[in-house]
Amino acid sequence: MSGGKILALAGGVGGAKLARGLARKLVPEALTVVVNTGDDFSHFGLHVSPDLDTVMYTLAGRDNPETGWGLAGETWNFMEALEALGVETWFRLGDQDLATHVERTRLLAGGKTLSQVTEALSARIGVRHAIVPMSDDAVRTMLDTDRGRLEFQDYFVRRRAQPVVSGIDFAGIADASPSPAFVAALNDDGLAAIIVCPSNPILSLQPILDLPGVRALLAGRRAPLVAVSPIIGGKTVKGPAAAVMRSLGHEPSAAGIAAFYRDLALDGLVIDTVDAVAADAIRTGGAEVLVTDAIMRDAEDSARLAGEVLSFARSIPCRTG
Amino acid sequence: MSGGKILALAGGVGGAKLARGLARKLVPEALTVVVNTGDDFSHFGLHVSPDLDTVMYTLAGRDNPETGWGLAGETWNFMEALEALGVETWFRLGDQDLATHVERTRLLAGGKTLSQVTEALSARIGVRHAIVPMSDDAVRTMLDTDRGRLEFQDYFVRRRAQPVVSGIDFAGIADASPSPAFVAALNDDGLAAIIVCPSNPILSLQPILDLPGVRALLAGRRAPLVAVSPIIGGKTVKGPAAAVMRSLGHEPSAAGIAAFYRDLALDGLVIDTVDAVAADAIRTGGAEVLVTDAIMRDAEDSARLAGEVLSFARSIPCRTG
Repeated sequence: MSGGKILALAGGVGGAKLARGLARKLVPEALTVVVNTGDDFSHFGLHVSPDLDTVMYTLAGRDNPETGWGLAGETWNFMEALEALGVETWFRLGDQDLATHVERTRLLAGGKTLSQVTEALSARIGVRHAIVPMSDDAVRTMLDTDRGRLEFQDYFVRRRAQPVVSGIDFAGIADASPSPAFVAALNDDGLAAIIVCPSNPILSLQPILDLPGVRALLAGRRAPLVAVSPIIGGKTVKGPAAAVMRSLGHEPSAAGIAAFYRDLALDGLVIDTVDAVAADAIRTGGAEVLVTDAIMRDAEDSARLAGEVLSFARSIPCRTG
Repeated sequence: MSGGKILALAGGVGGAKLARGLARKLVPEALTVVVNTGDDFSHFGLHVSPDLDTVMYTLAGRDNPETGWGLAGETWNFMEALEALGVETWFRLGDQDLATHVERTRLLAGGKTLSQVTEALSARIGVRHAIVPMSDDAVRTMLDTDRGRLEFQDYFVRRRAQPVVSGIDFAGIADASPSPAFVAALNDDGLAAIIVCPSNPILSLQPILDLPGVRALLAGRRAPLVAVSPIIGGKTVKGPAAAVMRSLGHEPSAAGIAAFYRDLALDGLVIDTVDAVAADAIRTGGAEVLVTDAIMRDAEDSARLAGEVLSFARSIPCRTG
């Protein structure tokens, strides 16, 4: 195969970086990035969608490479004024970023779906490729930890991912549907590959995969399914994926990623050169393996890795129905 | 009389300026400033109280003398980002000012009354004198104009007070109660004077006066009731008071102010030296008159005028019950 449409599944930073590379390599109509919304939450009455914003800002070239979230050149006058009023400000909302949340909240209150709002915001910020929330319904990632049951942002931001995670569930997921554009992409006859981005497999990708009907659609796919390991040399570039995998009984390694995604029957896995030793075992498990430099330091890295991932996926034959 | 408690009724800019002067002359426990909330509105899902904020910022010494609203040294990054998203931004919310609205909205959503929220915000911003909303219930100033029936902020900010006002009413006022601290101040045995600040008599003061029970409590007062004319030489220092008075059939003059407040049976009226010619007629109407420089250019002017108003009020004997 060559050409065709690409469906990428993404969480926050790692997913956004690969999505940025894919957007460099693909015309807008050839790419759909489906983004985790299990991290969404209400803050100061605003609907905040951290992963959607990270992907949107990154594809717009307005991401803040230092923080991994928010906007480049951000200012914090609102936050400082809130602090002066004695308000708890563990979740930082920049003055410009705030406009996104205010407008999203306003559009949602006006009856638009999160998909419609995301499309509108993406267009206004200059993103040409499709960014799609995994669902228009509320799904909230909840964590059982040694500090009690915590909402995701409480665990991740307020407590800096320090609590030990012993369980995870996605509140509301049984009643949620994958978003229309997500379902359409999965059912598209022109689908050439599905790429699971190097995001946290448990916190960012599992909510997407566990939406009712998604695993069945993936099981019936014709296009190859290729994942990019977020674990490199037993660690993550950013975030708590390794720690969370370990505490939930998964080995934080390239092989552990292959095992975690086993029920998806991955057609391919992209791993870093430092993990090359795991390649043969993963191939024995049934997946093709691409060994390459999987760290994305900048936009050039993202484009290079995206190009390699696309070539790798295109080298895998479609399944026969 | 000397000492005793002072109750000031205020709207936005003019009221805030005199309140600032009163706060300079009086210990915190001797002053209660009751503020119009008919201009309050919901914007971006936030509860905005323009007059309360103007009084609060002014008493905190953080008012912006150039605009007459908002905070000194304000920044506009949130607004600029909203504009970049294509959002209509006729009501300007500065980055720091925004924190006030967000925190007010959060506290109200948590079940606190507007009185409690105003007390908390005032304390946090360093205001020591009591600022009290006229009511904890929603009262919304509505204007019949040549551009249709308009909410106050639509008329005042969005349309820059250009429409011709043919009627006014205060939606919700029949079911609203004066706030507890307002009623307590009116009933306080230690009340030494009630001062009607130089705010817009129709748009800012009438909603306060028209709250159920307020005119009856004022009619039964013992303390003198003294108003400060917001009309100087037929004009207002700031705002549409003169135009609105004229279009509703009131003469925009010192005498017109005396007539407008006639049913309050003013004990005293403070007018500017340019209006001295009106003094005798006003006295004939039953009110004492103080003729002085009534323009408050800066904090010194405010303190001087407040001192004169207090001396004037204290020179008027209490009514016998």
